Amino acid sequence: MKDTNTLPTIADVWTAAGRIYPVVSETPVVESPQVAKLAGSSSVLLKLELMQPTGSFKVRGATNTILSLSDEEKKRGVITFSTGNHGRAVSYVAHQVGVKAVVCLSKRVPSYRVEAIRELGGTPVVYGASQDEAEDHYRELKEKEGYVPVVPFDDPRVIAGQGTIVLELLRQRPNIDTLLIPLSGGGLLAGMAMTAKALKPSIRVIGVSIVRSPAMLESLKIGKPADIEEKDTLADSLLGGIGRENHYTMELVRQYVDEHILVDEDDIEKGMRYLFTNHGLVAEGAASVGIGALLSGKVDVTGGHVAMPLTGRNVDMERYLSIIQK
Amino acid sequence: MKDTNTLPTIADVWTAAGRIYPVVSETPVVESPQVAKLAGSSSVLLKLELMQPTGSFKVRGATNTILSLSDEEKKRGVITFSTGNHGRAVSYVAHQVGVKAVVCLSKRVPSYRVEAIRELGGTPVVYGASQDEAEDHYRELKEKEGYVPVVPFDDPRVIAGQGTIVLELLRQRPNIDTLLIPLSGGGLLAGMAMTAKALKPSIRVIGVSIVRSPAMLESLKIGKPADIEEKDTLADSLLGGIGRENHYTMELVRQYVDEHILVDEDDIEKGMRYLFTNHGLVAEGAASVGIGALLSGKVDVTGGHVAMPLTGRNVDMERYLSIIQK
Repeated sequence: MKDTNTLPTIADVWTAAGRIYPVVSETPVVESPQVAKLAGSSSVLLKLELMQPTGSFKVRGATNTILSLSDEEKKRGVITFSTGNHGRAVSYVAHQVGVKAVVCLSKRVPSYRVEAIRELGGTPVVYGASQDEAEDHYRELKEKEGYVPVVPFDDPRVIAGQGTIVLELLRQRPNIDTLLIPLSGGGLLAGMAMTAKALKPSIRVIGVSIVRSPAMLESLKIGKPADIEEKDTLADSLLGGIGRENHYTMELVRQYVDEHILVDEDDIEKGMRYLFTNHGLVAEGAASVGIGALLSGKVDVTGGHVAMPLTGRNVDMERYLSIIQK
Repeated sequence: MKDTNTLPTIADVWTAAGRIYPVVSETPVVESPQVAKLAGSSSVLLKLELMQPTGSFKVRGATNTILSLSDEEKKRGVITFSTGNHGRAVSYVAHQVGVKAVVCLSKRVPSYRVEAIRELGGTPVVYGASQDEAEDHYRELKEKEGYVPVVPFDDPRVIAGQGTIVLELLRQRPNIDTLLIPLSGGGLLAGMAMTAKALKPSIRVIGVSIVRSPAMLESLKIGKPADIEEKDTLADSLLGGIGRENHYTMELVRQYVDEHILVDEDDIEKGMRYLFTNHGLVAEGAASVGIGALLSGKVDVTGGHVAMPLTGRNVDMERYLSIIQK
């Protein structure tokens, strides 16, 4: 049984960093002097998590979790639910170490993401109209088949894995003073915020949520996980609730995040087009919220040394090209 | 007067590395395990020169040249001819240090490249039906106006500047044993090959030319600069002759390059699509020749640790999207 009372700390991030690099890449950073000029900041740094194996940062948390399983657990196989990138990451990591991976997805998840999971060696199971319903089905299968759960965000091992981004970032550019981090279930934001505050308490941590799915913000308001309606968005990786029994990410986000901002579909489009045209990078909607926020002036970063993870590059090609061509 | 008898050496590359980094970026490298698997090599490494300011490696040679000018020369202003990326680089670097830059282009150069030069602070002059004719016009203007020439490839300072890519690469991944390098005028290949052989004599250096403009290969065959017909190609940055009076690149390529291969338009398209789909990178045709060669099996790199520069990301958007959507 996991201890639901102990939040992960910088020590867990350090342990994760000692474990994940056989599978995970240290990702490069690139400057965006153009965005820095537009935003009035001293610098803007992009951490290219979209260059991870499977094309997103999710491989960090998945690797930290799966590599810390016992041999007996590995033999039983793992199971997860996911809007896509976590499922891809679990499928890939499990396949690398010879473990079976079952991935439960809702019907809202685009079909190209389901196929990708199959190609990576995972076993997709499509069920339910929302992520919460897919999660119910996952619980059923877990009980019945004895699979070991690898949850997408609300787990100390996942949170610690995502925190390793900050270890790299502060080594690559020690002068960073502002972080812009996408927020959905909060695994990424919790891990990065907790790590950043431990190593550089003066750092300013800003969570970026989407107007169409601000689950964590609603939950923080009412003091417990909020049920919110899922709407179609370009940032489909940021869809979903924070889990009906959130044990870790909500509390960590509450403790370590300084500010929250919201971006809309226009901001996301703007960010995607900008990254394509000015940096030659294919970034999915969820990865473009930080740039979108800066381009739209939704956050004041005057004079700051700003960094943000570009979280993933898994796009529906047809939809992506229609945005780029606008 | 430049000494036309002295070829640049590793000492010039070292000097360049001490000079260029206020303007030039150290570019990141990313692995392509997928291409390595397809090609049967131990690893494939992509050096992301397309993330340089102005979107190509050309900024290295241009910076090394312009930063080594005297104050009197800087006051006169610089002039160059270019198929685009060199002109962009010269415009950008000159603007950064407050120097006027005139850029002579042939009518073959796509209009989006002409505009880009203007936006970067350069003064484009469009003249002639080929790069050689644009070069003639450049000579005229140079004499009449007293501008200082910054040539695109056949200059020891430019060659030494491009060689700095290898200093970074061998520090980033010392185990590299094979280099795949695009070849047109030869500044990039000469600089990288000379540097690589100085620091790691066992390294295998392969030049990649395009079937539609193999100027250097024809020149090596006949022992002097060959006039070749320019044909339309996706790798438009690789168009052009090697200069009617080639002093450096031809001899360096002859001395330091182990093998030459040729790629066709299909290979280039394949490379561009692959980089977009599997790495989320917008690479121009000239930057995609190495990946194209590996995907088409045009070179045997079995077991090797292969690296290649992705040289640029400046594409004609309409044409680019039509290739990606095929």
